[in-house]
Amino acid sequence: MPLINVRDSSMLEMKSRLAQKSMAISTRYPVMIIGGAEDKTNGCEILRAFFESAGGSSANIGIIPSASREPTIVGDRYYQIFTGMGAAQVQILDIRFRTECEEPRWQDVLKGCTGVFITGGDQLRLRDLLCDTPIVDSIKTRLQSSELVIAGTSAGAAIMGEDMIAGGSSGESPNQALVDLTNGLGFVPELLVDQHFHNRNRMARLLSAIAAHPNRLGVGIDEDTCIALGGDGTFQVLGKGTITIVDPGSLTHTNHPVTGEDSPLSLHNLRVHVLKKGDCYDYKKRAVLQYHS
Amino acid sequence: MPLINVRDSSMLEMKSRLAQKSMAISTRYPVMIIGGAEDKTNGCEILRAFFESAGGSSANIGIIPSASREPTIVGDRYYQIFTGMGAAQVQILDIRFRTECEEPRWQDVLKGCTGVFITGGDQLRLRDLLCDTPIVDSIKTRLQSSELVIAGTSAGAAIMGEDMIAGGSSGESPNQALVDLTNGLGFVPELLVDQHFHNRNRMARLLSAIAAHPNRLGVGIDEDTCIALGGDGTFQVLGKGTITIVDPGSLTHTNHPVTGEDSPLSLHNLRVHVLKKGDCYDYKKRAVLQYHS
Repeated sequence: MPLINVRDSSMLEMKSRLAQKSMAISTRYPVMIIGGAEDKTNGCEILRAFFESAGGSSANIGIIPSASREPTIVGDRYYQIFTGMGAAQVQILDIRFRTECEEPRWQDVLKGCTGVFITGGDQLRLRDLLCDTPIVDSIKTRLQSSELVIAGTSAGAAIMGEDMIAGGSSGESPNQALVDLTNGLGFVPELLVDQHFHNRNRMARLLSAIAAHPNRLGVGIDEDTCIALGGDGTFQVLGKGTITIVDPGSLTHTNHPVTGEDSPLSLHNLRVHVLKKGDCYDYKKRAVLQYHS
Repeated sequence: MPLINVRDSSMLEMKSRLAQKSMAISTRYPVMIIGGAEDKTNGCEILRAFFESAGGSSANIGIIPSASREPTIVGDRYYQIFTGMGAAQVQILDIRFRTECEEPRWQDVLKGCTGVFITGGDQLRLRDLLCDTPIVDSIKTRLQSSELVIAGTSAGAAIMGEDMIAGGSSGESPNQALVDLTNGLGFVPELLVDQHFHNRNRMARLLSAIAAHPNRLGVGIDEDTCIALGGDGTFQVLGKGTITIVDPGSLTHTNHPVTGEDSPLSLHNLRVHVLKKGDCYDYKKRAVLQYHS
């Protein structure tokens, strides 16, 4: 009965693929983008998911605290957390000057890492220190070949895209002057990330950013919430808040750029999703995949 | 040449319709919904448009200051403005108790009015005083038969829909507890209005309100900005800020209502528009009509 054999084997193959996919979804996320203020004392859902993605008890985690003005304190905080979870090794890449990025010692540390965690602070500082350096190149190469996973929180989340929100304000109609834009480190080029999102009322600023970059996908990430990328163009939501997707894929009009910097912006036909824990989204196809209520 | 005559006459008819439409758009708005803090000292663009809609120098304007705890001061402010513009008559309907709504004196005032202006204050106070009273019935009837126009600002804007945002907060992920909902006065039943919109960072609250009422159209109106309804299911934007439309017409999922009141809400596939002065929108067909950049 060759036909049945073929079907059996293809079903087994399918089951095995599903098992792999489900394992990939539930335990290993190549990239995690965290909205800041993630739980560090209770269940640590998000940090634990990163720890597991990096290999759990075999994890070799490198912490980059360079966005912070207190890199020693911040670095140590995460060192204690990942050590406490049982990581095999945790190292702090306390890079303070751009010239350091050329030094072989950091490359040596990175070579051993299965996971890199980028802390909060000032995203402009991160960009100035790390953009177009061998450190970032090395992380990108090792990310591509699945040799490590990365996560970034707050400023460490902001730098994930090719374009980056450097700062801005709230409490105004969307306008160009509401947001400062620059380049990010480009780990996930197509995303334009904003963090502490609804907590700091950043919808007008993300809308203003998307008006300037309608080729990107706007992703507003609340505190203690993250998008966990599966490496196949999809992500799922972890944590206690929401993810707000601003998709300008069907935009029919924007008046950006306007002459007066604080003139109100218009944006016609955006698609917006509010996602919560368990929701999955395909950012290549720009579609919500499933949900758990 | 009958054919040419027919074409000529139909072209003339079309021209005349366009002229009428353009006149209707530019000078008479049956309903104006203003996001609060409209300019009262400079060009007074929005208030002047209301004054013109009500008949200009022949206007007989009734001011309802009842949302305010200082109805005398607020009423007098608008009295001075519309008198200063040259209205034929301005009267203040200083209704302080619900029982007053039965009194013939207010009906007599309303009968003469060509325009009614509802001021800011507390929208719950307006609802408690006016909902299901002969005052509101009378305004609706006269609005329907084009005998008067109405405008409301801030609290006076909030009460326009059948459903109303009574209050709420910001700085949180969208959730049920973020917004207090009740019934409005229902002058434009299908709209769910929020005001002082980006100025007070109300996107999360409007999203939360729309999750509860996905049969409505969410309209966030910034300060010194208004939607001026044409009476044909369309409106245009006046003023200096933006209008944010949250259209759940293609919503594929929401988890509302959730068990935990402060659990995050999800909303999949909203259509969102940011409109500015000159933009037109058809809220029956739910489509942006045109724009002026």
